[in-house]
Order: sequence, then C-alpha cells, then structure tokens
Amino acid sequence: MQINKLLIKNVQLDGNSVDIYVEGNSIKQIGAHIETEANTLIDGTGKAVIPGLVNGHTHAAMTLFRGYADDMKLMPWLEQKIWPNEAKLTRDDVYWGAKLACLEMIKSGTTTFFDMYQRPYVTADAVEEMGLRGYIAAVCFDGFDPQEADACKRGCWKLFDKKDGYSQRVQFTLGPHAIYTVSGEFLRWIHEFANERNSLIHLHLAETEDEVNFSLKRFGFTPVRYLYKLGILSPRLVLAHAVYVDNDEIRMLADHGVKVVHNPASNMKLASGIQFPFVEMKRMGVPVGIGTDGCSSSNNLDMIEAMKLASLLGKAWRKDPEVLTAQEMLDAATSVGADILGLKAGRIAEGYLADLCLVDLKSAAFTPNFNFVSNLVYAANGNCVDTVICNGKVLMRERKVPGEEEILERAARCAYDLVKR
Amino acid sequence: MQINKLLIKNVQLDGNSVDIYVEGNSIKQIGAHIETEANTLIDGTGKAVIPGLVNGHTHAAMTLFRGYADDMKLMPWLEQKIWPNEAKLTRDDVYWGAKLACLEMIKSGTTTFFDMYQRPYVTADAVEEMGLRGYIAAVCFDGFDPQEADACKRGCWKLFDKKDGYSQRVQFTLGPHAIYTVSGEFLRWIHEFANERNSLIHLHLAETEDEVNFSLKRFGFTPVRYLYKLGILSPRLVLAHAVYVDNDEIRMLADHGVKVVHNPASNMKLASGIQFPFVEMKRMGVPVGIGTDGCSSSNNLDMIEAMKLASLLGKAWRKDPEVLTAQEMLDAATSVGADILGLKAGRIAEGYLADLCLVDLKSAAFTPNFNFVSNLVYAANGNCVDTVICNGKVLMRERKVPGEEEILERAARCAYDLVKR
Repeated sequence: MQINKLLIKNVQLDGNSVDIYVEGNSIKQIGAHIETEANTLIDGTGKAVIPGLVNGHTHAAMTLFRGYADDMKLMPWLEQKIWPNEAKLTRDDVYWGAKLACLEMIKSGTTTFFDMYQRPYVTADAVEEMGLRGYIAAVCFDGFDPQEADACKRGCWKLFDKKDGYSQRVQFTLGPHAIYTVSGEFLRWIHEFANERNSLIHLHLAETEDEVNFSLKRFGFTPVRYLYKLGILSPRLVLAHAVYVDNDEIRMLADHGVKVVHNPASNMKLASGIQFPFVEMKRMGVPVGIGTDGCSSSNNLDMIEAMKLASLLGKAWRKDPEVLTAQEMLDAATSVGADILGLKAGRIAEGYLADLCLVDLKSAAFTPNFNFVSNLVYAANGNCVDTVICNGKVLMRERKVPGEEEILERAARCAYDLVKR
Repeated sequence: MQINKLLIKNVQLDGNSVDIYVEGNSIKQIGAHIETEANTLIDGTGKAVIPGLVNGHTHAAMTLFRGYADDMKLMPWLEQKIWPNEAKLTRDDVYWGAKLACLEMIKSGTTTFFDMYQRPYVTADAVEEMGLRGYIAAVCFDGFDPQEADACKRGCWKLFDKKDGYSQRVQFTLGPHAIYTVSGEFLRWIHEFANERNSLIHLHLAETEDEVNFSLKRFGFTPVRYLYKLGILSPRLVLAHAVYVDNDEIRMLADHGVKVVHNPASNMKLASGIQFPFVEMKRMGVPVGIGTDGCSSSNNLDMIEAMKLASLLGKAWRKDPEVLTAQEMLDAATSVGADILGLKAGRIAEGYLADLCLVDLKSAAFTPNFNFVSNLVYAANGNCVDTVICNGKVLMRERKVPGEEEILERAARCAYDLVKR
C-alpha cells in the first residue's frame, strides 16, 4: 500500500509562510521550503493553518432535533419534546443524524469530538465513513434501579468486548449520564470498569442549580463533593459543564486530575448558569476544553462560534475584558481539548497527528489581519474553514465534502419521519 | 429610463413557496404564481426570503481596527490604541474602512445601518456606491468647552445645509457622542436643531457603570434622568446601549417615544454590562433594535450572530430560557429596526421597500428545517445569506459582491499604513 504523502505549500503559520509535509497520519516536517514527493499537493497561498478543532462535548445525532423545540424550560422541553422522540429513534435515524453532525463539524473545522449518546456503534460507523475522530461515550443511566444497572453493565461489557474492528479514529468510552440519573453504586462500578478497560468517563456534572439542590438533598453533598465521597474523581473523568463548583471543589478536581469541558452556548440558551470558573480552573491546573453540546440545545456544532461565546461570556460575567483571551480560547479548543482525550493532536508540530484546517484569509473577518487569532475567534465563524485534514487525509477541500447533499436530504427525512411516527 | 422590475420565483416565505414582484424600489406584489415581465429574474428555489437586516448601531470605518487591540480594559484600549490612530485617519482611510463595512454588511444580509463616526460625507460616499442604506450620524463632542461646541455647531449646519445631492438611501443625522463627552448645553442645542431639521439623534447612553457614576457625580442624576431634566427625551432620540436603566427610567423613555438599540457582543466583550432589560422595555413599549457596534469592539458586523448573542445573553442573565425568543430577535433586527429609523422597510409586504435577503437552505444549519426562524437565529450565521436586494437592486448574488477583492486589499493597506504612520 502506498504511504500517504501530503504537502501543503506556502501556508501562514504564526505569521510566517511555511510548507507542511505530512507522511502517513502525522506531521513529518515543517519548514520554509520543503522539496519532496507527495501524492497530494495543497496550495496554501492566502490561507492560514490551525490545528483541527476538538469539540469536547456533544450528542452528535441530536442534529435531528435542531430547531424542533426552542425557547422552552428544561423539563417541559425534555419531557414533551426530546424524550418521547428519542424513544422512537431507529438505527437509521442515529446514523443519518450522526452523519449530519460529522458533516457539520468537518465544514466548521472540527476533526475530533467527544460524544455521548445511545447506539454508540452507529455513531462510530458515521465517524469511520466521514473520516474524522470520534470519542464515543455510550450513554447509560440506571435510574437508581439495580436491574437497570445490570442491563447497563451488560451493554458496557458488550461494547468493550466488541470494540475491535474500528480504526484508531474511533474510541469508545463510558458515558454515565448524570448524578440524578445514575446511582452512586453504578458510578463506582463504571469507575472500576474504566480502570480495567482503560477508558475515559464522560459525565454531565454541576450543570444547573436544580442539580446542585438535588445532590444536596439526596446525597448530602454538592456534586463534586459527592463524587469525591464516592471515590471516583480520577484522571479518566471528563466533566461536561461543571458550572456550579466552588474553589475547594476546583482544587479537588485539580488534585485528582479531572478534566472539564465548558459549553457556553448551551449554558446560556438553556439558562443553566453562566459563571463558569474558567480563570480559577486554569489557575489551579484543571484542563478546560470547549464543547458545543448537542444541536437540540446549542443548535449548531460550530466550535469557532463556541470559542467566541466562551470568551465573551467569561468577560461579561466577571466584568473583566482582559480575561479569557482569544489565544486561551483557541488553546482550549485545540491542544487542551486533545490533551483531555489523550490524543497527540491539537498542535502543529512535527510528530503530531496531521489534523489540520486551512482558513481562507480572503474575507472581511480577516481584513485587516493585525492578529490572526483574534480575527479567528472574535470576527470569523465556522465558514472561514476552506480545507480540513484529519489523520493525514483530506476531508474537505474548497468547502466541499463528498456526499454532502445526500446527507442533508437523508437526515432531514429521518427527522421529519421521526416526529410524525 | 426603464423602470426596475425584479421577479423572485418560488422562494420560501413563512413556510409557503411564493413569488415576489418588485417594481422600482418597492414590493409590488406577493403571490403563489406571478406572471409578469421583469428585467431581473431570480430563482428562489431552495431559499427562504427575509427582510434585509437593520444594524441599529455601528461605527462603519472602524473595520480598520478589527483585531488591532483586544482583551484590554476600556480606557487603556481607547487611550493607547484607538484614539491615537483615529486622530490620524485620512479621507481615504474612512472611505475604505466604510467600504469594507458595507461589503461585510451586505455579505451578512444587512441592508440598512445606523452609523456614528467622523467624516460623515465619506461614509455616505461608500454607502452610495455600495447600494445599501446608511443613516449616518456625524459624531460630535464639545468636551464641555463652549468653543468646541461652536465648532461642532458649524459642522452640523454645514452637514444639513449641504446634505442634498445624495440619494434617499443616505440620511444624515446628529451624533452627540455621550453625556461624558458632550455638555448639557450642547445636547440641548442638538435637540433643538434636530427638531428644526427633522433629524434623528444617535447617542451612546448608560453603557457602563463608570458612566452612571460619572453622571451621578457630575450632574446629580442617573443618565436617563439627566436627559429628562435637560428636557431632551423625544421620539427623535435613539440610544445605543441603555444597559443601566431602571424601570422608572424605562417608563420615562416609553413616555417620550425614545428608542433603544441593544449591542450584545460589544457589551459582553468590553464587559460593560449584561443585564440589558429587553423584556421590560418591550413590556413598557420602548422599541428595541439590535446593533453590532463597531468592529474594534465587537469585531464583526454580522447581525445574525448579534441576534443569537442577544437572545442567549438575555436568557442567561435572567435565568429564563423562554424569554428573548428567536422571532423577537428577528423582529428587533428587521421591522423594529426599520421603525426606529422611520423607514418603511423590515417587512415583506406589498408597498414596503424592497430590502430583501435570500437565505440558502441547503446547509447543516437549516437541516432539518422544523422552524426556519429558530435555525436562522440559533444555528446559522451571516454566511447563510446568498442574495441581497436593497431598494429593489441586487447587491449580492450567489455570495458575490462586485469589487470585493479590491475593497479587501485597499482597506487592509489603509489599516496597516495608518498604524505605522
């Protein structure tokens, strides 16, 4: 088999024009003028290169519910709109919903995402076909019922016994939904199982005041302290949201190597809470990535928009325009995001995975271009991405992704049929 | 001269496929199948039509400062970065900066903007050439110095004596900067002059806590009460920001027919304040439009992004996901925005000005399309706009605006030369 050799010529990187040579799935060389044979040649003139973005928290197939129910309170939204339809989801629905999500992510520069949803194999199939990376958490909840917990355990065993046959781009992980849907016993079991099987754990935590009140009432502790008491804070744990945490809790997270993913659009739109402690987490050493959450709550999967929202929201509630800088946001959405997943990506450096995006600089958002990162985060949006490379392979060029029209049509049909059933 | 006759076929409007016939500069007929002669025929298949967006507050030529200084506190940002460079602005700089702004607005679906900047004639030239509508406030401040006030008055007389020669698309208005830069005496003079010359008044007000404190200390009143005491609250007055206003002040604004423009991106990024009372203003009858503010503080002129930010921010700080709905945001950015300016536009109805955008539905943001307005506000961004019509003329088709490349190049060169001078 011929080795993949890809050469990008004359692309902007940190203000310099460079060539980038990719061999196999990783970056082999970066230099002013690289002369080498390549199977694929990309002209980077008028473009800047950034690492592929890492969406740290989403529910891919929920693209099907985009715009289906907005401007509603959380519980009526879930009980009347989302859950009844999720109960009807077929394999085909999840497949086309996940394909649409992959398409949308590629088109806006995301090369890796951390998912949590039902039917993880189906999302995995979509990921394999679309060419990006999926860390796919099988969502599970026992509803505090030991019999349900047993069924969930069987699902986890099955997932991890059968997870071979997928490429390295697909990684299955565990996805206990939340502390109000999963019992402490089952959370402990998941913690042990994750240790045995070397898996990450993807958990919603401390998202709303209601959750904090539930935790205090039912367990006698705030959410992070409850996990601490259960003995399940660990470097395998990745928390989505973590809005309601105090400084002592942030210290606990740091001490145990726990990671956090911030979802500004979802937190704002669902009015869950806005005082995400990015500054404190960074200071105490908790790695913070950025996520979009699912399309039913944040409505799109645009990580460039998510970076802007995270920065603006953080500045706003802290009343401090100097914090959450554009560069910190880009780091959170690339290198930190990759680190959280244990992935050698998110940086443009020799030896790193070739997950790269070329950004078209010929637009108003990059004019003038005093500060590329500022323009990217504050002025642009996902549509500025022209070319996407993941694992050394080109997934999008000149904003075209193969099969795009079919995915839009099939996903739309699934969504309309689903809500009518 | 041949009358302009433009026919849009098969475009989505409120869920129906319609034809829209434009004669001259206004919408003549909307119907299922219109058979008529036309000079310009546009196929609306796969597209939805919305009114051209109204950007209620911006400083167009500040596109030149995009990304020049971010993540800074307000005063160092102004004193070290913005004011020294604004003092050096030439006619050419303002011209190309305003051209870039017009280009960016057209590309993201804005057909009308309310500006406030120096050299209003120059911005007017850019507006005339680019084909959109500009309500152009000549910024003025006397710095509490009667001699400066006299110079400003001469500028106002000159502007209104010479304003003929421009098309109806250009409207000059008065732009007293703020209560901390303009004396009460001069504000009163502007109020009288605006009555004489039938002009709107564009004023920054109640944007920051510092301004409120200044107002209390210097004048003994909060900003809105100060204007009330001066006797200059009137239907001619359009306030940018108005974040720090209490319910009694909102009542005063409503009683005097004052209008307000909300700028969520700028308020968040500069950390000015987030508790904009949209709900209270709407309830008490104060018309609220949406603006982007200038590119040096909000970084882009994308009104679709501004609608999303306004909604998400309002839901977030009020802890209520049901308020500031997608439809309310679209109304604020179209019909209310046009009403504020006294413009018969912002609605798709017979007899209204033909300021229209066609939105391309073939993208992830509009898939599925359960609710077009929700998708537009929450999932899309300015790049969804395919075609822009203003005053009956096509300004953009298939995302191409004539002269685009030259504008990007010239504006960038002006910006780089400016900061080096």
